Amino acid sequence: MRQQEAATYRGYRTAGVRLKEELVPNLAVSESTDATLYAIHRFDKAHVVMLVEEAIIARDDGVAILEVLRRMDNGDAVGERLAAGGGEHSGEQILIRQLGERVGGQIHLGRSSGDLVAVSRRIFWRDRLLDVIDGINSLRQVLIETAERHMEIVMPGYTHGLSAQPTTYAHQLLAWELALARDVERARGAYERVNLSPAGAAILTGSSFPLNRQRTAELLGFTRPLLNTFDAILQHDDELEMTSVLAIHCHNMARFADDIMFWSASEVGMISIPDRFCGTSSIMMQKKNPYATEHIKGAAGAAVGAVVAAFTVEKGPTGTPIVDREYAEIALERQFNYVLRDLDWMCEMVPEIVANAEVMYEGAGAFWAQATDVAAALVKERGYNWRTAHQIVGILVRYTEERELRPRDVTTELLDEAAVEYMDEPVRLSDAALAEALDPTKFVLARTLYGGPAPEAVRERLPDYRAGLDEDRQWRDGVRLQQRVSESKLDAAVDELIG
Amino acid sequence: MRQQEAATYRGYRTAGVRLKEELVPNLAVSESTDATLYAIHRFDKAHVVMLVEEAIIARDDGVAILEVLRRMDNGDAVGERLAAGGGEHSGEQILIRQLGERVGGQIHLGRSSGDLVAVSRRIFWRDRLLDVIDGINSLRQVLIETAERHMEIVMPGYTHGLSAQPTTYAHQLLAWELALARDVERARGAYERVNLSPAGAAILTGSSFPLNRQRTAELLGFTRPLLNTFDAILQHDDELEMTSVLAIHCHNMARFADDIMFWSASEVGMISIPDRFCGTSSIMMQKKNPYATEHIKGAAGAAVGAVVAAFTVEKGPTGTPIVDREYAEIALERQFNYVLRDLDWMCEMVPEIVANAEVMYEGAGAFWAQATDVAAALVKERGYNWRTAHQIVGILVRYTEERELRPRDVTTELLDEAAVEYMDEPVRLSDAALAEALDPTKFVLARTLYGGPAPEAVRERLPDYRAGLDEDRQWRDGVRLQQRVSESKLDAAVDELIG
Amino acid sequence: MRQQEAATYRGYRTAGVRLKEELVPNLAVSESTDATLYAIHRFDKAHVVMLVEEAIIARDDGVAILEVLRRMDNGDAVGERLAAGGGEHSGEQILIRQLGERVGGQIHLGRSSGDLVAVSRRIFWRDRLLDVIDGINSLRQVLIETAERHMEIVMPGYTHGLSAQPTTYAHQLLAWELALARDVERARGAYERVNLSPAGAAILTGSSFPLNRQRTAELLGFTRPLLNTFDAILQHDDELEMTSVLAIHCHNMARFADDIMFWSASEVGMISIPDRFCGTSSIMMQKKNPYATEHIKGAAGAAVGAVVAAFTVEKGPTGTPIVDREYAEIALERQFNYVLRDLDWMCEMVPEIVANAEVMYEGAGAFWAQATDVAAALVKERGYNWRTAHQIVGILVRYTEERELRPRDVTTELLDEAAVEYMDEPVRLSDAALAEALDPTKFVLARTLYGGPAPEAVRERLPDYRAGLDEDRQWRDGVRLQQRVSESKLDAAVDELIG
Amino acid sequence: MRQQEAATYRGYRTAGVRLKEELVPNLAVSESTDATLYAIHRFDKAHVVMLVEEAIIARDDGVAILEVLRRMDNGDAVGERLAAGGGEHSGEQILIRQLGERVGGQIHLGRSSGDLVAVSRRIFWRDRLLDVIDGINSLRQVLIETAERHMEIVMPGYTHGLSAQPTTYAHQLLAWELALARDVERARGAYERVNLSPAGAAILTGSSFPLNRQRTAELLGFTRPLLNTFDAILQHDDELEMTSVLAIHCHNMARFADDIMFWSASEVGMISIPDRFCGTSSIMMQKKNPYATEHIKGAAGAAVGAVVAAFTVEKGPTGTPIVDREYAEIALERQFNYVLRDLDWMCEMVPEIVANAEVMYEGAGAFWAQATDVAAALVKERGYNWRTAHQIVGILVRYTEERELRPRDVTTELLDEAAVEYMDEPVRLSDAALAEALDPTKFVLARTLYGGPAPEAVRERLPDYRAGLDEDRQWRDGVRLQQRVSESKLDAAVDELIG
Repeated sequence: MRQQEAATYRGYRTAGVRLKEELVPNLAVSESTDATLYAIHRFDKAHVVMLVEEAIIARDDGVAILEVLRRMDNGDAVGERLAAGGGEHSGEQILIRQLGERVGGQIHLGRSSGDLVAVSRRIFWRDRLLDVIDGINSLRQVLIETAERHMEIVMPGYTHGLSAQPTTYAHQLLAWELALARDVERARGAYERVNLSPAGAAILTGSSFPLNRQRTAELLGFTRPLLNTFDAILQHDDELEMTSVLAIHCHNMARFADDIMFWSASEVGMISIPDRFCGTSSIMMQKKNPYATEHIKGAAGAAVGAVVAAFTVEKGPTGTPIVDREYAEIALERQFNYVLRDLDWMCEMVPEIVANAEVMYEGAGAFWAQATDVAAALVKERGYNWRTAHQIVGILVRYTEERELRPRDVTTELLDEAAVEYMDEPVRLSDAALAEALDPTKFVLARTLYGGPAPEAVRERLPDYRAGLDEDRQWRDGVRLQQRVSESKLDAAVDELIG
Repeated sequence: MRQQEAATYRGYRTAGVRLKEELVPNLAVSESTDATLYAIHRFDKAHVVMLVEEAIIARDDGVAILEVLRRMDNGDAVGERLAAGGGEHSGEQILIRQLGERVGGQIHLGRSSGDLVAVSRRIFWRDRLLDVIDGINSLRQVLIETAERHMEIVMPGYTHGLSAQPTTYAHQLLAWELALARDVERARGAYERVNLSPAGAAILTGSSFPLNRQRTAELLGFTRPLLNTFDAILQHDDELEMTSVLAIHCHNMARFADDIMFWSASEVGMISIPDRFCGTSSIMMQKKNPYATEHIKGAAGAAVGAVVAAFTVEKGPTGTPIVDREYAEIALERQFNYVLRDLDWMCEMVPEIVANAEVMYEGAGAFWAQATDVAAALVKERGYNWRTAHQIVGILVRYTEERELRPRDVTTELLDEAAVEYMDEPVRLSDAALAEALDPTKFVLARTLYGGPAPEAVRERLPDYRAGLDEDRQWRDGVRLQQRVSESKLDAAVDELIG
Repeated sequence: MRQQEAATYRGYRTAGVRLKEELVPNLAVSESTDATLYAIHRFDKAHVVMLVEEAIIARDDGVAILEVLRRMDNGDAVGERLAAGGGEHSGEQILIRQLGERVGGQIHLGRSSGDLVAVSRRIFWRDRLLDVIDGINSLRQVLIETAERHMEIVMPGYTHGLSAQPTTYAHQLLAWELALARDVERARGAYERVNLSPAGAAILTGSSFPLNRQRTAELLGFTRPLLNTFDAILQHDDELEMTSVLAIHCHNMARFADDIMFWSASEVGMISIPDRFCGTSSIMMQKKNPYATEHIKGAAGAAVGAVVAAFTVEKGPTGTPIVDREYAEIALERQFNYVLRDLDWMCEMVPEIVANAEVMYEGAGAFWAQATDVAAALVKERGYNWRTAHQIVGILVRYTEERELRPRDVTTELLDEAAVEYMDEPVRLSDAALAEALDPTKFVLARTLYGGPAPEAVRERLPDYRAGLDEDRQWRDGVRLQQRVSESKLDAAVDELIG
Repeated sequence: MRQQEAATYRGYRTAGVRLKEELVPNLAVSESTDATLYAIHRFDKAHVVMLVEEAIIARDDGVAILEVLRRMDNGDAVGERLAAGGGEHSGEQILIRQLGERVGGQIHLGRSSGDLVAVSRRIFWRDRLLDVIDGINSLRQVLIETAERHMEIVMPGYTHGLSAQPTTYAHQLLAWELALARDVERARGAYERVNLSPAGAAILTGSSFPLNRQRTAELLGFTRPLLNTFDAILQHDDELEMTSVLAIHCHNMARFADDIMFWSASEVGMISIPDRFCGTSSIMMQKKNPYATEHIKGAAGAAVGAVVAAFTVEKGPTGTPIVDREYAEIALERQFNYVLRDLDWMCEMVPEIVANAEVMYEGAGAFWAQATDVAAALVKERGYNWRTAHQIVGILVRYTEERELRPRDVTTELLDEAAVEYMDEPVRLSDAALAEALDPTKFVLARTLYGGPAPEAVRERLPDYRAGLDEDRQWRDGVRLQQRVSESKLDAAVDELIG
């Protein structure tokens, strides 16, 4: 007799049934299931409710099963499953141990490890995606509020790693808000594609039992059942998408982290990070090492690694990579944790960053970031075409470099010298126009165009930022409601059966 | 005098103005601009129209410029720009050569190479994304039509690289339709984020000239101006997204290609690829090597490489990677070409693949893919719980392996022997039930659940597939219309000015 | 007073000294140090020995420190350090708690976290590299021995996923031996570059105390000190190299795993994997899913991810990524574990794989893999040039496809029909020559050239395989000896001081 | 009759022989062969020489073939092959067109496209690897020479993106020499593994004709034939290794480029890049954008992409990815070009970089990089243990930050205030010791330990750098000689035959 004693039942893969040897011990370990056990538990309940409702299993047997599952709910269902060894089939194991194989062995009717994994992963992923969306939205709010408090702080923007043009701290912070808003858009797209139900698809063909896939989908909070059982289980582009979406978000965060580190570099000193996000050195006691931003950057590196791991393990004919996928899933789960950690840090850190307005203003003027508007003055006041003006000021900048002058040292005479070198005639710009052109604050104030950095232009666009955030939060509220409704439906269905 | 002769004008970066040396020759080459010259030309026109409309430059000068640009349109504008050396500033170069610096030097007023690049890349990318969407939609239609012609062809599906369960050729083809539908969804999301206007953002702060960014956006067919000029130029998550979206699509295509290769492998022989997509060997003349599918797989490898290249070059403080980005853009452009090529091949190849129904049916039955339903028969006819039934049939399969029997050789006696080994009693399944359970066609016919492979279930869902494709095509028509309207507006605006 | 009580000393980074706030709790966690604590402990001892020998610290203080460290050795030094919170400075913490700051605070003289990390990582890496080399060498031996037992088993080789030419199982297994031999060569190269000493380089400039870097290097088993203290700490190409070397090895293993999976696919059935490396399905009880090979493939995907993570986090100006690097190091450590696990599995699995000689022979002849030698027969017996012969047999193969004939059904008449179609004349090959050409065994036996698959050719090369393995093992023995000598030197030096 | 007219022969794959349709046109294109045609030509000659020497083909026929190939050598053999459509079989095509199928059709006897590709790729790769080694060695020499001229220039080194400790420009440049030396070591390892001969391995089993593989290997300049014909053609870890080796080198170069960019950033201004490696902006005329270093960084991003593309396309059962590999090979070839370009730029740029010694010195002292040695002074002069000294100076640094003091403003009184805060007693360091500790130059001069930055320590190690470079150049000379000898042997063998 090969049938196991119910009391010590340990799963269907035992030597002597289909296969002749016990599994090599370290092959049985699956790191990636633990985090999804709560979702497996929910699927177990929904599946049995549906089996009973459709009269596929006997009502009494279904009720007995649901009573065990409900009792687990009242305690620590996940802990109980972990104690039983965990895994997708921890429910069946607990049920057989308690109810015997005749009753407990019915839980898996019409299912496969395939849809157990697919359902629980999708529930886990959608929940994590929503956590990420919440976290990003919080940071967006932080950015908008912090920007509002720093509308007038003039600082340089950079291109090619060099001082480019003056802008404001607020203008740059709000640019990050937009990047994060796109991260949310992408995460919403991923959510819509992930929150579809593979339940009932078994491994690829569904079942010859008359499963009601719409009903299970409803009880699990999925938008609808996936349209094709083969697609539902064996295609995984959604996983690639989520991993990519997270990586793009991590990339945005890492770039923000890089900016913060550059702005606070020894020679730059434009901002100061709260001490609690920094370490110091065991030898160089001057150091205030920006640990948090470094972690954020490191996690972004891991994110790209996760993308590549996912693309690599998923390669091959459909259905060939199965166990292999775990390596992508572990990386994805880890990445969700990093992302949530990093968002928490940033939400706390960003509003407390001290912006050194004086250093910023100095930096905006000391390295010729305002040069563009000296040429603009030649166009506006003296009617030169852009290219001529640009070339003359190019020569002017070279002069200051050769003669070790600062922008503030420039005179209209020097400008004329440059003009003469360029075209054999002076430009005769007024001193006032030159002085105005050299002032980084004037540079910023003049940029009132749509989306520009002038405080009034930023203020004019602020409602657009807020509207974007509001819209995303309303969507989130809608999803939250939908999930609660489906949880209630499942509870009610179980209640009705177990009376 | 540093001013160049108009007739031989060669751009603003010449030794003796800002910098003292001519550029090292091989540094000036930029591979990635050529494909976007058509978009730069369009931006040149729209920018000048706006400058004139807003009275930022003199109407006469603007008209003179527009006449040159329009004349180029009548010939080969892109060719003329390439002949002038190409690059973002080919327009200015041609204009200065023809109109002199005083007039031609006005084209760049209020712009930067920054928005020239951003605008032209976004136009190029949106156009390529639409081409890709068209190509995918064509392949979806091919898949739906091919599936309709193969609803009854039973064949195995695979998991862990092994025969798993019988399904149909149509059911598998339609699963691909769904993967491609998601590819289109993702591409649409990317399009929505890409088709926003950076025009007027210059390099990061816009301009002190009163540019009308909404007007330029309208003339260029963008949905609206980007909300923040810093974000508009210096953030590139859209590029990472597009590269990822293409890579996911390529991955789907490569997996389909892998399936085709496996189905046509020597030992499998279930399908035959049209000869014109195959090579043969210079030595092994039996070979019919599936070149096209191998290229599709290779291009998918390049796609993941492109993703990594993009993430890597974009890493760093905002605005530091600029020239570096070209390496991501070249890879992305190349990938668009591969994707369009591969879609063309597949649209032509898929309907001509010969499905060998006999071999497929044989394959669906010879390797115990139908085993699931032998256990199901024990549940349905004999009332056993699933797990008990599963274990008994597990022992049965082992017997056939040990005794070198085929599934079709199995008898109810052998099944009883397995049952006795499992639980010391026979199951007494009827011969008829066993025979039915062993028939792969019956297996498929029984799977009438939502999304299942039974022909009637597939037929029931077909309208859903078609509706999805129709919706995507309607969106595409809307976009096409919107683009035509904007092109007309630009033409009309130029016409009005040059009279 | 900011000085901490010795008894509860918790490290140098406390609020109120350099920085004003305590570190955010989850910032202090460093996953990557635990595995290297044993090496940190060794560095602590070697460093103090050197400090005393060079009279940089007082002998008595040094002896007191060494006594504590030696006592830890007698227990569970690593466990004690973990209990103290772990980390690079766990030694200092334990010492200050036991000896007070005046004595314990001397351990870090002339060091930095920089060389603590660099030294301990390099020791950890070199040790893991040697474990990997041992594991690979074991598998090489298994392959050579398994090949010797399967020299006559004829089976097909594949190209483009299709049956290409007959070869032997032994010939293919030995090809893997060579791939693994190259893996060892690469790992040896990495070892040579890793086993150099950064000790004494502190963070980048060494120290103004007269450290004896050669002595520390000797006591730690490094070949020599690194030549430049800046290079020693701040360059990490060795880490990229190791990660790449592991990834290439994993790729080789994954390809081998893929071959095993293909050879054991349902339709192919040429080999059988021991049951204990396989799972079965919760629903499809026929399944014998090759878990181990899937894990090996998955780990290879993770390996490529690790490479990308390493390249990504290490990007940036020298010395900027520091904490970030942990994400690469965690991935590398994980990869070492996967590699050692996979080698263990393969060493056990490969010799127990059952080769089904009959199916293999059948496969070698049924799909025209022998076609090459039909053309060769036309060259040898009938004097045709290769290309003509090749084309005629190409037509012949097409005939068999069109007329549904097997290779064994071919007659000289059919060959002549093909020849006539090609060049209007028959080739008149003898029946005997055709029969011989169609026999896969004859195909293999004829390939006696250097490196060919004929058993006599394989036998002739076997000593070369063995010599390669022996040479690698001798190198390994040399390294082992060198390491033991250095361990003895350190023990002796400590003994001498603590007397 | 299917046989083609000799005069218009266009290869063996024509409709009506093995396959019924002509190849889809865009499938026939192979980008990756062009660069290897010179090596294919050489293989064609060596193969025919061997065939004649071993009496496998008739001497007269062999001579006729060699005469054609030699005649091509006298003109532009590669150009002639390209004109004939290129590809591996361009030789056969030209020969059949000129000599007819009977003679020309013999060139491919005993070969396959397999060894044609493998031989020519390996020759191409080994030649490119040697070019890369030459280029790196040149840059190493430049670095050594430039360092010698800058031994006394004090500048800061950085960790965590912050000023860490003073070192010298020479010390940092020499660190790069060591990274490049390791790049050469890795490239040498790759060369040793690549320069082995697959010739005669055909596609995987060699041939039933008695090919002399040792002779062909000798004529082609390979070290020896590969030991196993299956391994010789179907394993490609060497390709993964080369791609990885290049990527690591590119990473090193990119990090160097990043340092150069940081050192020349607006706020840092420690060095100045020659103008000819820089662009300027079309709008911000102050810009001197470091184009070359940005390209170097971009190419390093492409390099990681190439690594991933290679790992991805090579995944799958042995022999399944064949055409797919082209995508890895194209990326590798492109990468070789980037690497050689970048080395050229750097060899020219590095010695002309202007180091601004004053700014560097200022930077080394202004941000507390010298803090380590203030603590060291407390140890040396006042006998404090390191940790106590470190904490006191930590408080001191905090004071200067809070009170907006510069390091040079610090007094012994302030130090005592810090000491008192730490441990309730002053340290009473002498003014002289404090002044010395605060001087960055003294900091550097004190670091005379092995590998340290003190000029005398650097001078002491210089012979080691030179010796390393010399050794690599001697190896290179040896390889050059070996290649010339093998070229002469081939020429002589052809001469002897065509007499």
